[in-house]
Amino acid sequence: MPTWSTFDMQMMTRAMQLAERGRYTTRPNPCVGCVITKGNTIITEDYHKVAGQGHAEANALNTLKQQQVSAQGATAYVTLEPCSHYGRTPPCAEALINAKVARVVVAVLDPNPQVAGRGINMLEQAGIRVDVGLFEAQAYAINRSFMKRMKTSLPWVTVKVATSLDGKTALSNGVSKWITGPKARQDVQRLRAQHCALITGVNTVTMDDPSLNVRYDELGSLKNSLHETQIHQPLRVVLDTHASLTAEYRLFAIDSPILLVTTKPYPELVKSQLPSHVSVFKADLDDKGRINLQQVLVHLGESCNSVFVEAGATLSGSFVAQKLVDELVIYQAPKILGSQGRNMLNLPDYLQMDQLPVGEVVEQTRVGQDTKIVLRMTGNEQTN
Amino acid sequence: MPTWSTFDMQMMTRAMQLAERGRYTTRPNPCVGCVITKGNTIITEDYHKVAGQGHAEANALNTLKQQQVSAQGATAYVTLEPCSHYGRTPPCAEALINAKVARVVVAVLDPNPQVAGRGINMLEQAGIRVDVGLFEAQAYAINRSFMKRMKTSLPWVTVKVATSLDGKTALSNGVSKWITGPKARQDVQRLRAQHCALITGVNTVTMDDPSLNVRYDELGSLKNSLHETQIHQPLRVVLDTHASLTAEYRLFAIDSPILLVTTKPYPELVKSQLPSHVSVFKADLDDKGRINLQQVLVHLGESCNSVFVEAGATLSGSFVAQKLVDELVIYQAPKILGSQGRNMLNLPDYLQMDQLPVGEVVEQTRVGQDTKIVLRMTGNEQTN
Repeated sequence: MPTWSTFDMQMMTRAMQLAERGRYTTRPNPCVGCVITKGNTIITEDYHKVAGQGHAEANALNTLKQQQVSAQGATAYVTLEPCSHYGRTPPCAEALINAKVARVVVAVLDPNPQVAGRGINMLEQAGIRVDVGLFEAQAYAINRSFMKRMKTSLPWVTVKVATSLDGKTALSNGVSKWITGPKARQDVQRLRAQHCALITGVNTVTMDDPSLNVRYDELGSLKNSLHETQIHQPLRVVLDTHASLTAEYRLFAIDSPILLVTTKPYPELVKSQLPSHVSVFKADLDDKGRINLQQVLVHLGESCNSVFVEAGATLSGSFVAQKLVDELVIYQAPKILGSQGRNMLNLPDYLQMDQLPVGEVVEQTRVGQDTKIVLRMTGNEQTN
Repeated sequence: MPTWSTFDMQMMTRAMQLAERGRYTTRPNPCVGCVITKGNTIITEDYHKVAGQGHAEANALNTLKQQQVSAQGATAYVTLEPCSHYGRTPPCAEALINAKVARVVVAVLDPNPQVAGRGINMLEQAGIRVDVGLFEAQAYAINRSFMKRMKTSLPWVTVKVATSLDGKTALSNGVSKWITGPKARQDVQRLRAQHCALITGVNTVTMDDPSLNVRYDELGSLKNSLHETQIHQPLRVVLDTHASLTAEYRLFAIDSPILLVTTKPYPELVKSQLPSHVSVFKADLDDKGRINLQQVLVHLGESCNSVFVEAGATLSGSFVAQKLVDELVIYQAPKILGSQGRNMLNLPDYLQMDQLPVGEVVEQTRVGQDTKIVLRMTGNEQTN
């Protein structure tokens, strides 16, 4: 492990700040930031903005080119290993070599099988000094969804629930508007905007008739840094075991991709009425006669880094019980709904403490009147 | 309302700090602090330590007397109106008059019917300038239990529950050790030590066989400021509707007062076996065939400022549902016990949001691994 100078740490911190700017826009690509220095001065910096467009290193070097400034002998700080393959853009390792930088500092290796150390090798073979591992954990965390998917082919799974202090989401008769306050609902909108896909169950659709889209007006302070046109709508996924949905629901009216997951074919009439932004994925049943969630995640993992589960207690509970969840986000309102109210997660009847789903609180913050508790689930079957 | 100088505010803040020192020891008396100044100097200060011993003002003046320092022309800052009646000690108003102080600053009036403005009157009639209301709300809060009891004849009621993030206290089979961590359990010990009485139900006694005492070793940092001999054991109250308890339980072995509340006489054999520190109160049934909780509180209010309910979901739930609770203290562990687990409070089947018990979060702090949430119940029938 190299010894890092204070300057190295400052520059990589800056590169990570730049990377973070892509949080809502780069998917399914990772967020990457790049800072290039000469002596004690930043000569250029940039980040990856949108998949298919320039990578962080390429963007930073392009600015230099336009200004006719040479990067020869410079140091490049990048939050993720530079890519080594021709994708929609040429490899960044090659661009750094051509720019004749003297040293590249990399926070974390890219687990993408198309990169995975090859970017480092290319640079080293060109005689460039490469130092890897500065703020590795922090840089990994910025792209934890991408990292998980590259390693396991499964997307990062976040389950959201809105509950009372006594763990209830509604009264026994279903009355629930509004348990949590407007600030918490804004925060949910931001989480929706961060995730590649949103999963719900057919019952939520038929009972609440939600649109399940990101509503720009409800993004709060995020609007200051993100233009409406930059928002990615998540793929809306509805688990509809018995193909019982019809085209009348509100979510279909919004022209943005929808995936219906079912185990049966939809009636021809329904199919003919569904708009063209709707596709169907046929899944198998699990041993409980429900849609096989693992299979759904594998399918979504082909294109999605992260999925956001906003569903009822049964579907959300199944994700938790099957240990498919990376983070459980609880918005807890300062209310008591009573023991007859509806539970937040329908879970099996555990008989011993060591059977329980376990997690670690990684965030606990006040969001308006409510408390947001993020539980990082630690007993998952998949490594991530 | 007088205009307070910065010095006035500093001195009353100091007096309140002194008052707080009596938090664990003065009951059923209020906590009171007194600071006496001449010019810009504190010439004496003290607080009320133990019921039956010197009041704050008397203690402070006694020190002056011993030092042969005159209080003539001084200003006295007291957190509670000086008493005007002969109790176990002579009236403090008289002591201040005799000491010839020129001004008395009082934070809050004493609602005790034996005082209630008369202390102020005595002082004013002796030609002393009296200014009332500096930090009134804060001074009221220090003695909120005493204040409630003086106004309503009912003790302050705190209900404690230890739950998971999903509002459960145990698995369906009752397994619950330990939901919360050692720091939370220490905090419960400190709450026990603050309250005059502790209420539990017969089921908790027969199932868990608790001692229900304050254990000095478990008081944590409180041990630094409080000697073991200063701890008051709360009156242990067991609600035993059908007089079914027998003398074999652990709580009887500890020689400290116990009150058994029942609706039936105990069998003679049991009575003969119960130790002498046990007394019995006969209560009526309410319309649901349970012990009338209001009646129990009225009885306890004859001598107790505050009661601490550490009971199962049924008894604790009854206190909440009957709107008898001032504060609900929730120790929330970062765990998920599952929907089949036991609920924290058994409450009625509410059908509308406006029927729910309501409160305001006045404290939310990390206690070891757990979160302590204090909900000040605002919909109580009694004013307090």
